[in-house]
Amino acid sequence: MVGEALGTKLAQLGHQVKMGSRTANNESAAKWVKAGGASASQGTFADAAGFGEIVFVCLKGEIALEVVRSVSAAVAGKVVVDVSNPLDFSKGMPPSLAIYNTNSLGEEVQKALPSAKVVKTLNIVNCEVMVEPAKGGNPTMLVCGNDPEAKAKIVALLKSLGWKDIVDLGDITKARGTEMLLPLWLNLMGVFGDVRFGFKIVRS
Amino acid sequence: MVGEALGTKLAQLGHQVKMGSRTANNESAAKWVKAGGASASQGTFADAAGFGEIVFVCLKGEIALEVVRSVSAAVAGKVVVDVSNPLDFSKGMPPSLAIYNTNSLGEEVQKALPSAKVVKTLNIVNCEVMVEPAKGGNPTMLVCGNDPEAKAKIVALLKSLGWKDIVDLGDITKARGTEMLLPLWLNLMGVFGDVRFGFKIVRS
Repeated sequence: MVGEALGTKLAQLGHQVKMGSRTANNESAAKWVKAGGASASQGTFADAAGFGEIVFVCLKGEIALEVVRSVSAAVAGKVVVDVSNPLDFSKGMPPSLAIYNTNSLGEEVQKALPSAKVVKTLNIVNCEVMVEPAKGGNPTMLVCGNDPEAKAKIVALLKSLGWKDIVDLGDITKARGTEMLLPLWLNLMGVFGDVRFGFKIVRS
Repeated sequence: MVGEALGTKLAQLGHQVKMGSRTANNESAAKWVKAGGASASQGTFADAAGFGEIVFVCLKGEIALEVVRSVSAAVAGKVVVDVSNPLDFSKGMPPSLAIYNTNSLGEEVQKALPSAKVVKTLNIVNCEVMVEPAKGGNPTMLVCGNDPEAKAKIVALLKSLGWKDIVDLGDITKARGTEMLLPLWLNLMGVFGDVRFGFKIVRS
């Protein structure tokens, strides 16, 4: 869902987008390619990682690191946007976090891809809001990562998606705080019965 | 700081406030009492717990449970507002959390005070903002706890402090999500160089 929402919007904005899946001919991805027109294509995770100038990690938390490690060579030197969250559904609902407090999935992705420039962002809202921030009341988007140029590139991309209020939190260790927003996000989804909301950082 | 800020504002609003400390004649509390006038008094933690109709827990996370357990009998049947956070400074700065993910300090306070009605709130902003939400850009205040009447009483009290946007998250287990906001809060304090901010939940 997250990859399709981002891929569709990015293709609409004129980017060439290759959707990576476990198999080269994944059925859902094929449907997405058919709907997406000339800018959309599909392949394996390795194909997508090799194709993209910017590579988005939109994976289930439990599988993210395994997949990321498998494409390490293909993303060397590239900007990798980690949109995933380390949600642990193994202990029932609501999910807890599998990585937390003194570590984060964002840091683990950066460790797994030492030659890539990992930027953590977008993981704090639903995918509908990721590609249309007004749908979530125009919340604040949080960005972190170790490479300033990579962050600047992604901030520009976020602006093209409609994000107006973007805060740079610092290096990739700051992913801890954004991933630890998830329990509250899940709680609020239950309270509102809706995914179209977000967190706006306000000041006097 | 938190207890003094809340105590001062509550006294200004016409409440009788007794500040509890380790000793009955704590020097800082004595200064606060002198400045606070006829509505302000001081005593031990047990004195304050016995005095209040509503008891605020504004303690350092590392000592909170020990103090709370020591006043268990005195707060039976009362509303206890847990404002504290389980910050762990023992591993250096920034502090991490000592309780997290599948548990919270709020839940531990409720377990330590089985006959009290614990409400977790105010822990997500600096004490300046607690007593003057406009100073933090009028963020959202989050409330949780097992007793609906206790929450209604505290929501009314929050409104009297100036809070306009208040969301009831549910039972005391929802304290997990609010306490896990602290790493991001600490991060943002560093980015802004200021404590006067907060989180506004926005929707389309």
